Amino acid sequence: MLPDQQFLRIPGPTPIPPSVQHAMSQPMIGHRDQETKDLLHSIKPKLKPVFGTNQDVLMIAGSGTAGLETAVTNAVQPGDEVMVIVTGAFGDRFAQICTEHDISTHRYDVEWGEAVAPQAIEEHLKKHPHIKAVFATLCETSTGVLNPVKELSRVIRWHSDALFIVDGVSAVGGVDVKMDEWEIDILITGSQKAMMLPPGLTFAAVSERAWEVIENNNRPSFYFDLAKHRNQLDNDSTPFTPALSLLFGLSQALELIEQEGLEAVFSRHRQLMNMTRAAFKALGIPLLTSDKDASTTVTAMKPDDFDPDALRKVLKNEFNLTVAGGQKHLKGSIFRIGHMGYCSPADILQTISMIEVALNKIGKSVELGKGISAAQEIMLSGGS
Amino acid sequence: MLPDQQFLRIPGPTPIPPSVQHAMSQPMIGHRDQETKDLLHSIKPKLKPVFGTNQDVLMIAGSGTAGLETAVTNAVQPGDEVMVIVTGAFGDRFAQICTEHDISTHRYDVEWGEAVAPQAIEEHLKKHPHIKAVFATLCETSTGVLNPVKELSRVIRWHSDALFIVDGVSAVGGVDVKMDEWEIDILITGSQKAMMLPPGLTFAAVSERAWEVIENNNRPSFYFDLAKHRNQLDNDSTPFTPALSLLFGLSQALELIEQEGLEAVFSRHRQLMNMTRAAFKALGIPLLTSDKDASTTVTAMKPDDFDPDALRKVLKNEFNLTVAGGQKHLKGSIFRIGHMGYCSPADILQTISMIEVALNKIGKSVELGKGISAAQEIMLSGGS
Repeated sequence: MLPDQQFLRIPGPTPIPPSVQHAMSQPMIGHRDQETKDLLHSIKPKLKPVFGTNQDVLMIAGSGTAGLETAVTNAVQPGDEVMVIVTGAFGDRFAQICTEHDISTHRYDVEWGEAVAPQAIEEHLKKHPHIKAVFATLCETSTGVLNPVKELSRVIRWHSDALFIVDGVSAVGGVDVKMDEWEIDILITGSQKAMMLPPGLTFAAVSERAWEVIENNNRPSFYFDLAKHRNQLDNDSTPFTPALSLLFGLSQALELIEQEGLEAVFSRHRQLMNMTRAAFKALGIPLLTSDKDASTTVTAMKPDDFDPDALRKVLKNEFNLTVAGGQKHLKGSIFRIGHMGYCSPADILQTISMIEVALNKIGKSVELGKGISAAQEIMLSGGS
Repeated sequence: MLPDQQFLRIPGPTPIPPSVQHAMSQPMIGHRDQETKDLLHSIKPKLKPVFGTNQDVLMIAGSGTAGLETAVTNAVQPGDEVMVIVTGAFGDRFAQICTEHDISTHRYDVEWGEAVAPQAIEEHLKKHPHIKAVFATLCETSTGVLNPVKELSRVIRWHSDALFIVDGVSAVGGVDVKMDEWEIDILITGSQKAMMLPPGLTFAAVSERAWEVIENNNRPSFYFDLAKHRNQLDNDSTPFTPALSLLFGLSQALELIEQEGLEAVFSRHRQLMNMTRAAFKALGIPLLTSDKDASTTVTAMKPDDFDPDALRKVLKNEFNLTVAGGQKHLKGSIFRIGHMGYCSPADILQTISMIEVALNKIGKSVELGKGISAAQEIMLSGGS
């Protein structure tokens, strides 16, 4: 193993582009100085297309979970009825946050590895006519499922007045999400996924409809008070000390997205997914999710004849390649590859080639080059 | 193509390890302060094993060519007879430097792509009994040949009193070279190759025998005066302003070499060569040099049915992967892959996989995964 070389292919944190790393090394500036105002002013318009919204996107120092809790505490109040669609560990987290805040929570659980069916939600909504908000996960990081958020939104709008609140962590920046067009009310993400930044910054975009609800919400909230964040951001400022180095990095990450082109970014992610899926199909290693339900940002494999944790151990020890294991009841039965943000087709080829070698090392005999060539075929056919 | 991602697989400059890059970002220090003395003091013992010598290795701000000229101007004087073994562009450069300095230069030219045969040098030495120095290239970067320096040294010692001066650029740090044991009199290298640094620092190690000659050399020389450099380094100092950021980086690069272990570094380079050669053999693309003459740091391919520059263009434009072309009369007929310094087996797999795709793009149909699987086999068999 080469010292000082590591390959990070977990579904976040993801590798940081060198120019973003460099940007983050800038000297600190005064958080109330004009430089910070200029920085926020330049970031605001560039974030909007990434979220598919005309709303300003709020930036709060905190992890993705801080963003999820912000959405919960701002959009609903104790005693409110909500529905949480749970397709994996992060849907479960949304439900936990609601429960913690004494929200009357109707869970709709889906088998892990499958996406939710919008028609099922229709029935669930009919059963619970007082639901104030529906929470869903766009990309369920724990399984690699991409939920049909656009269709869910239609069903919810048709059958209720509930706000539609979406966890876009592991998706926004890599998945084409059209917040305004799809009528998502609150869209959250974190910095350490497709946004190509270290963890520590969470993002929230809020619809006009949601702002009305938020403004009438009397629940006590200080740091997570979205209205405070909006009012300050209107003046290119923040209510509390911003995570400045992450904002330096964000500015450069958005520059890179603009340089590549947002459509090209999404199409690259589709290609990364197609390459990864084609490789494991060729190797005869079962995928956890169907092609239809698959996310373009993370792929989970559910091997039936080897221990995924044994594979992960060899990858880590011999190549310093980190891929993720399973969470909760999928622990020990799946492994997951993150392919979002600063990730290229060449990175997927490299990852697969190391996995082919490692599989043979743990006694799972696969034909060398077989997964790679399937992924290469996708590149040659321009498949994305 | 992913913005801000590039793959540098030329035979130098080579990629810089992140921790070395980081080390080079340290604030400047006074070049006559104790910090600089401490830095040089700590570097000195760590450089010796890399050169296979007990002599202190001198560090001079300048490119590799500055190092070659330093060797020439210190070891010989105008009118002296020397022999220069030319196996490629860098042997040719040594000869040019000698000629420029009015040295009576006997070239011994070898077909590019082949190593010199020590017995041929024996005859050449007999023909020219007054030769004061023999210049040779260890790794000929332009062809990927590794000359048999150990055997050459024996022949030279047996048949003459000439100094043996070796260009170790593209080799030292990646190739096991034993300066003292092999009786090399001056060994030069540059920072931007197997030493994992940016260009700008050249290294010279000098034998006791060579010091005697250097001390009796009356040729005027100021900056390149090796005795000045030695006298200052004895006191942990330099005669002229040192390239401080490169020294910061060097200290960390030597740390990485120590961490991996010098034997493991050399064995990794052998594996990288074996993987590269196996891949191109499997793809049916001819190698320029024989297995016997091959360097562990750079490999040249001489395709017979496609234009290597067309391949290079696709690699650069579509993947931002840079491989080198040919130099001088090999321009347009070969391409070269550098695999030295901060380069792992995983990097070779990635490079080969992109080349397989690119070959198909330029109309040279190769079976996808075929080169990769040959390289993977080497990894599995532990071949190095």
